[in-house]
Amino acid sequence: MSATVLERPEAAPEAPSEQAEKLVIFAWSGELDRIWPTLILATTGAAMGKETTVFFTFWGLFPLVKDEVRITGENWMQKMLSTMNRGGADHLKLSKMNFAGAGKAMMMHLAKEHRVATPQELLDLAREMGVRLVPCQMTMDLLGLKREDLIEGLEEPAGATTALAEAQGAITLFI
Amino acid sequence: MSATVLERPEAAPEAPSEQAEKLVIFAWSGELDRIWPTLILATTGAAMGKETTVFFTFWGLFPLVKDEVRITGENWMQKMLSTMNRGGADHLKLSKMNFAGAGKAMMMHLAKEHRVATPQELLDLAREMGVRLVPCQMTMDLLGLKREDLIEGLEEPAGATTALAEAQGAITLFI
Amino acid sequence: MSATVLERPEAAPEAPSEQAEKLVIFAWSGELDRIWPTLILATTGAAMGKETTVFFTFWGLFPLVKDEVRITGENWMQKMLSTMNRGGADHLKLSKMNFAGAGKAMMMHLAKEHRVATPQELLDLAREMGVRLVPCQMTMDLLGLKREDLIEGLEEPAGATTALAEAQGAITLFI
Repeated sequence: MSATVLERPEAAPEAPSEQAEKLVIFAWSGELDRIWPTLILATTGAAMGKETTVFFTFWGLFPLVKDEVRITGENWMQKMLSTMNRGGADHLKLSKMNFAGAGKAMMMHLAKEHRVATPQELLDLAREMGVRLVPCQMTMDLLGLKREDLIEGLEEPAGATTALAEAQGAITLFI
Repeated sequence: MSATVLERPEAAPEAPSEQAEKLVIFAWSGELDRIWPTLILATTGAAMGKETTVFFTFWGLFPLVKDEVRITGENWMQKMLSTMNRGGADHLKLSKMNFAGAGKAMMMHLAKEHRVATPQELLDLAREMGVRLVPCQMTMDLLGLKREDLIEGLEEPAGATTALAEAQGAITLFI
Repeated sequence: MSATVLERPEAAPEAPSEQAEKLVIFAWSGELDRIWPTLILATTGAAMGKETTVFFTFWGLFPLVKDEVRITGENWMQKMLSTMNRGGADHLKLSKMNFAGAGKAMMMHLAKEHRVATPQELLDLAREMGVRLVPCQMTMDLLGLKREDLIEGLEEPAGATTALAEAQGAITLFI
């Protein structure tokens, strides 16, 4: 899967004349049911040849944390905050119906039966299709996360200025 | 009310010269307090002469389910999932303050006193004003919903590609 | 801080030729963790020279209510609704992890240690940098709020038509 990272799908050359079509998603939420539309829209946009960027900020950063990494900050508060929000795309919760995790289990099962990709699969697919996955530097600082705590294949961490510069003229969605 | 379906308000002819002004809302949430801004912005956009499209996806699809239809899928999980999220615009919950339904009752009462339209009224009005209400095909598949399970007056179900194509150059909001 | 109110940062004159770059945020949520990205993006946009407008609607209006003002409507329902949502930027809650307020206390402490501005500081900064802070007239009517119940430095209350007119051609985010 990682062999084709950074390659663009064939649709890209179709729109060279006028200004490039762009899609910029601000992925603020880390919940399963919001990560889904984020990554489905991002991969669809990339497949349509749009320059597609997802800025992962605040709660949205957690799915990018390596599974083997527990977020461990410098003090007890960061640790406590981190414990409540385990990183990694396998640990995402639904924003609703979260009683004892039943909602998530059902949703994942439903998705599997109907062949809708899991968040981890969509994350891998997005990188393969050339979606730029950008972690938010300020959030990383706030949580004491280093570059090596995050999964491979991401762009350099960036801030709001970079995000807004990219967003000008793009389809912009805050999810 | 349904006599004027598909007619455009008078404001539309005002902006024929340059590219058509568009508003595209991704209605991902099914909660009362989010359906409200979705439909208020959509009807306002249509009244201003903008080509207005609302894509109802994920939880956002539930308000489009016919009141008499309980979502009944092929297996117990879909049924359970559906029970937790009764379809129909009359059953929407608030995303906050949902203790025993008191928050919703109060909000509806407040809205009534101040003559703010109910979600069902806004949904009807939106269709009358020519807002394109598009159900998400992937969500329908996931929940085992058929076209006839949804209310009248909707566009053909469509996917993310259609939504993003429509969104290019539009005001885009993910609600 | 208040000495430079309404002054634009130096970046503004850089983009006079083509159409002005704009950022329009629909601030629908009143929670601390959503007010943060709203104001960080707004102040960043203003610093980049973009015409930046934030429309505060629904729950988003509460942070604009004066600290000394309790929202007191004409009847018990408005009062009850208001009690549940104390206005003022100092009383914002997190949308998640709100057990006994611990999550908020930790987040504010984390922010302080890492020198991330508080919502009140960001609100002040936004006004100083020329961000247009516009309260939603319909929400004010719904909650029985008058202009003098809101903090100083806001634009005239406006409705969805004004918001959408401003949003055309802008980066648009619904937060």
